[in-house]
Amino acid sequence: MKKRAILPLILALAIISAAGALASEGASEATTHNAAMTFFTIALLLIAAKASSLVERFGQPSVLGELVIGVVLGNLTLVGFHMLEPIKSDPIIAFLAELGVVILLFQIGLESNIQKMRAVGLRALLVATVGVVAPFALGTWLVGPWLLPGLPFNAYLFLGAALTATSVGITARVFRDLGKLQTPEAQIVLGAAVIDDVMGLVILAVVSAIATAGTVSALTIGWITLKALLFLVGAIVLGSLLAPWLGRLLSAIHTGVGMKFTLAIGFCLVIAALAQLIGLAPIVGAFAAGLVLDPVHFRYFKDFHIVEDMKEAVTDADTATRNRVHAMLESHSHRHVEYLIEPLGHFLVPLFFVMTGMAVKLETLFDLPILLVALGITVAAFIGKIIAGLVAGNVRKSLVGWGMVPRGEVGLIFAAIGKAVGVVSDSMYSVIVIVVILTTLLTPPILTSLLKRKV
Amino acid sequence: MKKRAILPLILALAIISAAGALASEGASEATTHNAAMTFFTIALLLIAAKASSLVERFGQPSVLGELVIGVVLGNLTLVGFHMLEPIKSDPIIAFLAELGVVILLFQIGLESNIQKMRAVGLRALLVATVGVVAPFALGTWLVGPWLLPGLPFNAYLFLGAALTATSVGITARVFRDLGKLQTPEAQIVLGAAVIDDVMGLVILAVVSAIATAGTVSALTIGWITLKALLFLVGAIVLGSLLAPWLGRLLSAIHTGVGMKFTLAIGFCLVIAALAQLIGLAPIVGAFAAGLVLDPVHFRYFKDFHIVEDMKEAVTDADTATRNRVHAMLESHSHRHVEYLIEPLGHFLVPLFFVMTGMAVKLETLFDLPILLVALGITVAAFIGKIIAGLVAGNVRKSLVGWGMVPRGEVGLIFAAIGKAVGVVSDSMYSVIVIVVILTTLLTPPILTSLLKRKV
Repeated sequence: MKKRAILPLILALAIISAAGALASEGASEATTHNAAMTFFTIALLLIAAKASSLVERFGQPSVLGELVIGVVLGNLTLVGFHMLEPIKSDPIIAFLAELGVVILLFQIGLESNIQKMRAVGLRALLVATVGVVAPFALGTWLVGPWLLPGLPFNAYLFLGAALTATSVGITARVFRDLGKLQTPEAQIVLGAAVIDDVMGLVILAVVSAIATAGTVSALTIGWITLKALLFLVGAIVLGSLLAPWLGRLLSAIHTGVGMKFTLAIGFCLVIAALAQLIGLAPIVGAFAAGLVLDPVHFRYFKDFHIVEDMKEAVTDADTATRNRVHAMLESHSHRHVEYLIEPLGHFLVPLFFVMTGMAVKLETLFDLPILLVALGITVAAFIGKIIAGLVAGNVRKSLVGWGMVPRGEVGLIFAAIGKAVGVVSDSMYSVIVIVVILTTLLTPPILTSLLKRKV
Repeated sequence: MKKRAILPLILALAIISAAGALASEGASEATTHNAAMTFFTIALLLIAAKASSLVERFGQPSVLGELVIGVVLGNLTLVGFHMLEPIKSDPIIAFLAELGVVILLFQIGLESNIQKMRAVGLRALLVATVGVVAPFALGTWLVGPWLLPGLPFNAYLFLGAALTATSVGITARVFRDLGKLQTPEAQIVLGAAVIDDVMGLVILAVVSAIATAGTVSALTIGWITLKALLFLVGAIVLGSLLAPWLGRLLSAIHTGVGMKFTLAIGFCLVIAALAQLIGLAPIVGAFAAGLVLDPVHFRYFKDFHIVEDMKEAVTDADTATRNRVHAMLESHSHRHVEYLIEPLGHFLVPLFFVMTGMAVKLETLFDLPILLVALGITVAAFIGKIIAGLVAGNVRKSLVGWGMVPRGEVGLIFAAIGKAVGVVSDSMYSVIVIVVILTTLLTPPILTSLLKRKV
């Protein structure tokens, strides 16, 4: 076991050295198109991500391994190795990573059930509301003025706003890695995260307006809210109406598996793009797309080859066997679209989490006063969301609360906009970055230990 | 049928209008990240590609549909619609398309058999050699001076060199679309295309050196040839030795389907990247990677869920049924890696062919004198490769010859470099572009009618 655990390390080092050699080779031959470098980068990130699945041996979800290996790869400059730095600003890798989290939320939407979501809808709304109000209040009026005294009120406003975010990717991966996506707790967190994103959109508009103009009109707030709600309802209602029609239409052109795949992925990308144009996160659109698509929309398309062959192989069998085989195939049939999307997930999803890890700047943790302030605010960030879990009704409240904790890139967007309008200072920006890092990296192990604990 | 054929058209128009609306919306909101536009572009290209599979109703391979719809989308400026123009220069779409053709050649390598390839190796070498010498001679000493008189000799040299290229993507797709990839003709074309790429590398170095320095050293030629051959032999020999070891190593970390996928795709990307750094086309590396990888390297990994469930479903069945099912599963098992890569192919491969079509500038065909010259040279380009087919031995020689005809982007690289060193004039460049367009667009229907003709 020990010997085996060392091999991947050697492999990773060999790949990193080779990447270095390639990078200098590439630089010396100016005519070399940079696709080679990108191919190599993708291979490196994927193999590193998979090698990190060793964390599963210690009972941790593989997403934690991907984040940690990303933090390691992204901070090799601390030991004088700078060759991986260009990866951080590579626009193609950044796009693939973003597509990765869109695919992940699409997969999670496909695996979720719109009826189940509706059943927890009210509780999700409650959790989302408290999960926005509590951290906002804590940040703006308590820990902000207490730990970072003497700043203008607008700065605390942005801090509070940054704490309201919920980045659902991490939590969804943990629930999925541990096979708990179908629990009511997971469904509540997913629903609350979608609602939270709508609220976040409104809050961002409001605090930006207050910080720049000193005021905000109710009309603006109303319009942003309406637009977001219309989009979500529209995506789900119109999507549900359009999907069967699209299925029939596209199957009239071709009934192959390729068309089936294109219908699914095209639907996902269009709704994700529309969500982003409205101002919502594209992952919210992708999740809605997955929620709307139903196996029944794909019934006109061909099955996998292996399924057809299986049916044929048992035509002469006894009735009991035939029934058993058909029941088994039936139990898989609703997952065919998920199977089709899965390899795309294997390709793209790890890129997102490794890149998320790589974006972590460990040197921000080295400034002790800032680190201490950030730790205090992180505790407030934890508490704000744990309080939200308390209103989740008759489920394991701690699971819901901790599931809402990761702030991810959404928190950073608040911080970046606050910095851009001159309200958030450099040190407050660093504090928010550390809070995002800690909520992101600490949640997977905490959630895992909660999920594994007997109730 | 007629009514059904109109629906996809309406759909395509609706999508194009929506894209336009989005594009202007996107432009007006400067803060909107451009991922939304890229998501939308991918969806548009994929749906257009799949809608074009209507050509199958007319017995044509779907790759022809993808090329033609690409030509249509890429030339909408001729009817005053300019909204799709940014797609042509989008670096992310360009990368995904390039990755697409790499994945295609990897799939074709996986479906090919190294023993079969070796069996046709000598004939492939012969075909490649004649397929380089004949078009080169025709271009440099016959049709060049005849149809474009009065140019310096170096210009004819580049024209001849541009005609030697073989772009295997198109032919491979036609053979694959029609289920003829396992025929000796297809294997000879694939082998000859790989050898042709090595020869092309040497020719490019030689003509560039002659055009700029007026001379070339035997040492340079020898070194380039050696490097390319070493890479190919190295990729296949070292790859064959490393693959089983990598399979064991990675399965020691994790035996899941995700790791299996990562092993396959990582192997493909690394060898494709190395090929490009040597100066070969990345698709040559990807093809070699697919050729080397064997189902046996993946035996330590888990099977698909559905396969395990099938085995379980027939445990109580009679012996005959059990044997039949196990034989059926066995016959599929060597294709599991291909099944894993397939969805990635559905996602990326159409992007390559639609983008290839979009790169066609129809207005180049509007200059009558240039068009006539280009038609003459295209005929020479056809003849040069058809002669090569004659040395293919005891197979359908016309299939091999026509299979070598498409020049694709490789011919354009020669033209572009010739233009960069000032040897190729603007009108000769246009001529080469038209030759590339015609060899690329005319080959699929011709090859299809040859393949469907009774021998």
